[in-house]
Amino acid sequence: MHVVITGGAGFIGRRLCLELLRRGQLTSGAGLPARIEHITLFDHLPPARPVKDPRVRYLAGDIGDPGSVRDVIAAGTDSVFHLAAVVSAEAEANFDLGMRVNLDGTRNVLEACRALPRPPRLVFTSSIATYGGKLPDPVTDETLQTPLTSYGAQKAAAEFLVGDYSRKGFLDGRALRLPTITVRPGKPNRAASTWVSSIMREPLQGEDAVCPVTPETRMACLSPRRCVAALIRAHELPAEALGISRSILLPGLSVSAREMADAVHRHAGNRRLGRIIWEPDPAIQRIVDGWPKASRSARAAALGFEGDASIDEIVRGFIEDELEGQAQ
Amino acid sequence: MHVVITGGAGFIGRRLCLELLRRGQLTSGAGLPARIEHITLFDHLPPARPVKDPRVRYLAGDIGDPGSVRDVIAAGTDSVFHLAAVVSAEAEANFDLGMRVNLDGTRNVLEACRALPRPPRLVFTSSIATYGGKLPDPVTDETLQTPLTSYGAQKAAAEFLVGDYSRKGFLDGRALRLPTITVRPGKPNRAASTWVSSIMREPLQGEDAVCPVTPETRMACLSPRRCVAALIRAHELPAEALGISRSILLPGLSVSAREMADAVHRHAGNRRLGRIIWEPDPAIQRIVDGWPKASRSARAAALGFEGDASIDEIVRGFIEDELEGQAQ
Repeated sequence: MHVVITGGAGFIGRRLCLELLRRGQLTSGAGLPARIEHITLFDHLPPARPVKDPRVRYLAGDIGDPGSVRDVIAAGTDSVFHLAAVVSAEAEANFDLGMRVNLDGTRNVLEACRALPRPPRLVFTSSIATYGGKLPDPVTDETLQTPLTSYGAQKAAAEFLVGDYSRKGFLDGRALRLPTITVRPGKPNRAASTWVSSIMREPLQGEDAVCPVTPETRMACLSPRRCVAALIRAHELPAEALGISRSILLPGLSVSAREMADAVHRHAGNRRLGRIIWEPDPAIQRIVDGWPKASRSARAAALGFEGDASIDEIVRGFIEDELEGQAQ
Repeated sequence: MHVVITGGAGFIGRRLCLELLRRGQLTSGAGLPARIEHITLFDHLPPARPVKDPRVRYLAGDIGDPGSVRDVIAAGTDSVFHLAAVVSAEAEANFDLGMRVNLDGTRNVLEACRALPRPPRLVFTSSIATYGGKLPDPVTDETLQTPLTSYGAQKAAAEFLVGDYSRKGFLDGRALRLPTITVRPGKPNRAASTWVSSIMREPLQGEDAVCPVTPETRMACLSPRRCVAALIRAHELPAEALGISRSILLPGLSVSAREMADAVHRHAGNRRLGRIIWEPDPAIQRIVDGWPKASRSARAAALGFEGDASIDEIVRGFIEDELEGQAQ
């Protein structure tokens, strides 16, 4: 089978690709696992750390361009993981870019899937940024989506399209509402939540990190390991298990900035830790305060999706995968 | 002030135009009523019954074409009522047309509003068809939107965009989730709910009507009078009254097909009534069964929106406005 990952040069795209290669197979429409022959990683940027495997190819292009997307989701595509997105703070600063990538880009993916001779399976990454305002804690399956960012509005609108394209039989889609994924490797990005990774990643590598929110600020967190497992789980679920909604809220562990800082100290080992410089930025604080502090979904649990047990588990996973496990 | 009504050749567009002309003024951004100087009715069809008034002009064009929409929502536009839509059964049969009109057309309207020097007030008609599946009865402010038609998915996605363009200050929008509007004059259209008007309208005019659902089938109904009043009410509310959500669920009276038929008999007067021929159509029944049977919104009530008290009020209004009140 042939798998396409949009946003494939990004961190989650890379981790998903590595895990698919490790498994070597994926369950799809027919219900039986099929061997993964090819993985195409589509992105507008070249990969920082390319995956080297004969089954993998990189394709550069613009998700906002229908022709480029048709070229990558070409005949023979069995599965698409659509991860490409403009992140929250960037979509807030550049409205047109957010609309072009997050909404039009998703439509381009949906239309390319629809044009295939056999409807492919599609996993789309939505976000708990589709929730906002005065929210219950935790956010659950019963919580209304009231996005307070353009990113959230674009993702929420796209979820309805994934649901409708699936209902029409144009594709077999699943949309996952991801909590904040942490700890991400690399550099800070333009997500308003980027500090959730920075304040653990930088100190563990001896660097100082600026935290733009107060120590009490809590976020709904999910580790990269659990995220990748959820993407694959979402792909492998039979359509019948999903019922009328193709959207699934993933479980987000509630962790405060201070608890993150404390966990880093517990797992420092012999490392000389960098410091956290607390410099609240009102614009970032306002966006972050509008997001869920935790998420819990009975539906996701029944479908076999698992969250993280503790911030310690998340920090240990980061150290193993990114600081010690450099082989990957 | 200059008001634009998209879908202005349609039934609600015409009734709204007549009511605006009768009032002669409209409260807008500044909070004080302003005199209505011009009303532009934009539609792809010529009006069946044109409104003749020096303040009114008709403009033909395609809502799916950005340039045409920019031409109609031109400099000097203060208010836009965006009613243009492809109805439910038609959007189900012609997916691309539904996407083009209901989603892209709405984006064209939003972008044209954004391009104006002063952000206009926008009233957008969404629908209770944005709800679906196993629904509470009545549907309320707490009910999740799970559309089971393309029309519903497109309207739900568009609501998020209206909300976000408003939050960004590009326009000052309000989205109304309309129940089934009944009794409509004229001919059946391609809405899956068109029978809700036919089974009252045709018998009252001596004609037989086919009802494609069972007599027990209940619908959430709103009269044209209440609908037009709600559109104007939505326009006149100050933005501060709306809070973080720009969407408002309107109250829909629960009426069964049989109760509609009975009401016609009670208000027949000297008329020779046509018959109802009960011929359930499984495709229509399935769509209609997925919609709310009633809607009630504490928020709408607090904001001053009113529903109909009884099916008798609805039938009497139709007789007065469309069968006796032909002067309009």
